[in-house]
Amino acid sequence: MSLVNTALQPESPDACIPSTASSSAGSAIASATRGEIAVALPMRHAGVRQVTLRYEVQGPADAPVVFIAGGISAHRHVSASSAFAEPGWANALVAAGRTLDPASHRVIAFDYVGADGGLDAPIDTADQADAIAVLLDALEIDRLQAFVGYSYGAMVGLQFAARHPQRLQKLVAVSGAHRPHPYASAWRALQRRAVALGQLQCADAQGLALARQFAMLSYRTPEEFGERFDSAPEIVNGRVRCAAEDYLDAAGAQYVARTPVTAYLRLSESIDLHRLDPASVQVQVVVVAVEGDRLVPLSDSVNLVEGLAGRGQLRVLRSPYGHDAFLKETDRIDLILAAVLRGHGAAP
Amino acid sequence: MSLVNTALQPESPDACIPSTASSSAGSAIASATRGEIAVALPMRHAGVRQVTLRYEVQGPADAPVVFIAGGISAHRHVSASSAFAEPGWANALVAAGRTLDPASHRVIAFDYVGADGGLDAPIDTADQADAIAVLLDALEIDRLQAFVGYSYGAMVGLQFAARHPQRLQKLVAVSGAHRPHPYASAWRALQRRAVALGQLQCADAQGLALARQFAMLSYRTPEEFGERFDSAPEIVNGRVRCAAEDYLDAAGAQYVARTPVTAYLRLSESIDLHRLDPASVQVQVVVVAVEGDRLVPLSDSVNLVEGLAGRGQLRVLRSPYGHDAFLKETDRIDLILAAVLRGHGAAP
Repeated sequence: MSLVNTALQPESPDACIPSTASSSAGSAIASATRGEIAVALPMRHAGVRQVTLRYEVQGPADAPVVFIAGGISAHRHVSASSAFAEPGWANALVAAGRTLDPASHRVIAFDYVGADGGLDAPIDTADQADAIAVLLDALEIDRLQAFVGYSYGAMVGLQFAARHPQRLQKLVAVSGAHRPHPYASAWRALQRRAVALGQLQCADAQGLALARQFAMLSYRTPEEFGERFDSAPEIVNGRVRCAAEDYLDAAGAQYVARTPVTAYLRLSESIDLHRLDPASVQVQVVVVAVEGDRLVPLSDSVNLVEGLAGRGQLRVLRSPYGHDAFLKETDRIDLILAAVLRGHGAAP
Repeated sequence: MSLVNTALQPESPDACIPSTASSSAGSAIASATRGEIAVALPMRHAGVRQVTLRYEVQGPADAPVVFIAGGISAHRHVSASSAFAEPGWANALVAAGRTLDPASHRVIAFDYVGADGGLDAPIDTADQADAIAVLLDALEIDRLQAFVGYSYGAMVGLQFAARHPQRLQKLVAVSGAHRPHPYASAWRALQRRAVALGQLQCADAQGLALARQFAMLSYRTPEEFGERFDSAPEIVNGRVRCAAEDYLDAAGAQYVARTPVTAYLRLSESIDLHRLDPASVQVQVVVVAVEGDRLVPLSDSVNLVEGLAGRGQLRVLRSPYGHDAFLKETDRIDLILAAVLRGHGAAP
């Protein structure tokens, strides 16, 4: 892999919230830093592409480094800090008192390649993994204590472990495996068709909202819907409106407001392109599966662990939140991370 | 319930295949008969509406009568006969040598109210049940040996049993319960939105195809998709195309060719309008549930049976075909029907 034109560019204060800031205690250590680097990334299906890697780093410079990667709609802002006060996408997991306490760990995350909507080409999970290696080079980080990946992030983590084994000690792969399940791929393919149907008539937002709403059904479970939306439908303007539709409307609108259509399409595709031989992963991996996950069946997680041989360990949760358990069952996920990062959890 | 203008109108040969025909053995008994009646049907949400009930009857006039009702895309042509030779939607279940052998049973089915696309109004399962009672009046059938309902047909069967208990001896309710599950309702609501998105630009067929494709995922299981579509995706014209997409394309096209958009929308809604107190059902019911059914969770079938008290009996199948098991696991369904119709299966 050859890389050219790699340039570290701290983000200008004009671009967004100032890129570094002191912690609330007034210490000299920045509570969080954002920046971006422009790189020429050789991609598996798309040739060499000029992309911008946008990252955020939180925690002391000398602390053990953990890279955290979430689903395709996750981003570099994992949790709130004094520098960047808005809640992050894993705000309850990267927090004071948690295993991933930013006082004791240096937590890094980035915006996925393609997340800005500027790259309209097939993106492989291997491309994301290589981009992360480039980013670590730029940040002068040799080795991670752990890579914690959830959903798409688990797939990227497996690629990172396979392609850059010297860069990490352990991988925690939550709700993601060595392949997408064919049923889940079909589900996503239809979501992309909803976007295409919207695009036919320049109703891109409507198509994307519908795609997201269908995705929500794959992220959650019937148990949760049964609890939350168990009232009779209404007839509104002569049409039946079901109890969950307000919730689905909100989920669609919220997603559309923050997601470029191209980003959604290409990252959704990227999940389906993912494919990796578990035997190619030569580091310790804790695979966390959720029983009831409608996207990643337990059997795929078991197959992954078997393929990892002595390097894999399986933890299984049962959760009404299904695929979204990582974001919802934060106490239980934190216990698993504690065992892994403190060295009790990753033994074969 | 008051009914006006009920008129029995044997279907004219010009309209479709001749309405009666001799069996291949040349006997004087018609192998199957089709006809239609025009009725003014008082509907729960839509007032009195003029509708046409299209039926097909197969089997000897003096045999025990079984009414059979399927999913929203089922119709009056249940199985092939010498009169109507094309395969029916339950061709393997209503056949020589089966429990529902047309030589020993008189099998009746109809096109659901709304299936012709001519009724653009909310349709309740109670309306379907009342329409069936009207149809039986017109055919001078006092009482059914059994009502066998699958999916939407099970819901209609429960309404029929609750509203017209004197008209049937037993109900077999397969893959349908006293309510739609809230998660399944959300899934269908989104399918209807796919249709609406298509309608925005007069791409009705494309919207309906997408709705059907999403529905297919709810009818089948990850196990089946895992077996059938486990090959890597392709990149076609720069886009990722998953292994199941050819299958889904075919399923969408086939459905669009035979289904009016309005029929789909109103019958899909009708499932979500369904709601019934199991205690209101005062006949023997055999509830058949499929473990792995993504639309009707086992817990809803259990709740139905509990609500039926001594009148309910539960049979559970495990099938990779999920909600579609009735149409696929025909040997096992036939065994259940044998037990019920021969009197061994319906005891409390």
